[in-house]
Amino acid sequence: MEEDCKNKKFMREAIRLSCENVENGGGPFGAVIVKDDKIIATGVNSVTRDNDPTAHAEINAIRKASSLLGDFNLSDCVIFSSCEPCPMCLAAIYWARIPRICYGNSKQDAARINFDDAFFYDELMRLPDQRMVETSQLLSDEAGKAFDLWMAYDGKTAY
Amino acid sequence: MEEDCKNKKFMREAIRLSCENVENGGGPFGAVIVKDDKIIATGVNSVTRDNDPTAHAEINAIRKASSLLGDFNLSDCVIFSSCEPCPMCLAAIYWARIPRICYGNSKQDAARINFDDAFFYDELMRLPDQRMVETSQLLSDEAGKAFDLWMAYDGKTAY
Repeated sequence: MEEDCKNKKFMREAIRLSCENVENGGGPFGAVIVKDDKIIATGVNSVTRDNDPTAHAEINAIRKASSLLGDFNLSDCVIFSSCEPCPMCLAAIYWARIPRICYGNSKQDAARINFDDAFFYDELMRLPDQRMVETSQLLSDEAGKAFDLWMAYDGKTAY
Repeated sequence: MEEDCKNKKFMREAIRLSCENVENGGGPFGAVIVKDDKIIATGVNSVTRDNDPTAHAEINAIRKASSLLGDFNLSDCVIFSSCEPCPMCLAAIYWARIPRICYGNSKQDAARINFDDAFFYDELMRLPDQRMVETSQLLSDEAGKAFDLWMAYDGKTAY
């Protein structure tokens, strides 16, 4: 019950940010990252404001939280997003090792206001030669060199 | 044939960057973005260097190209990546409206050197309740407010 109240408080902050961002000319999306029951970073969609197609609320919040903690691993954090993450943001959540997501609007809700999240999920599930983005492989024999260097390099930081 | 030579030149630059990045202590990934047959932006994986889990080669290159052009839409660009994009980067390519990808190493090659790209593709294809990341929906009734505001707002920049 207490847990439920806390979660609602964090989600309401993500929703408040999403509404405020529309008033500021941005997309209707907000996110907060919580650690030890405290919000440590927030993000709103700033794609059009920053001319950055990757600047979704969740990506912005992850970048801020990682910078603040000085750690690319956020495995002790939870993310609250006003909308179900798009595949870019969901994969970013995996890369950041965040174990838990709470979202408000669904990707179907986002599709109804003309955002492409649901379509992109469908596209990613297709085989590369059936996707809208033309995809081809080139020079795979030469590209392997970097992987060989990586495997042989003792000083690497694996993640 | 000329097209093929140009493409190989761009791919070789992405591969060169990926090798150089290992020598600089970063992950074995590089990317270049090409517009009008010229490289306008490059990126390497700087996740561990920048403490930013989103700082993959393609994301870094997209952010630079968009910033340079002052445009979140890169529909007249092509991206060359030393490795098949992970789902985060592939979705970023969709959001940036880049119509074409050339890659060197495959996601299976990346899996062989212990990067999670292929696993994350599998995870994204699952239903949310079958994923490793715990996912729940909360306050959907309240979250819709931002979408209503967005639809009603005349000054919005849709994308």
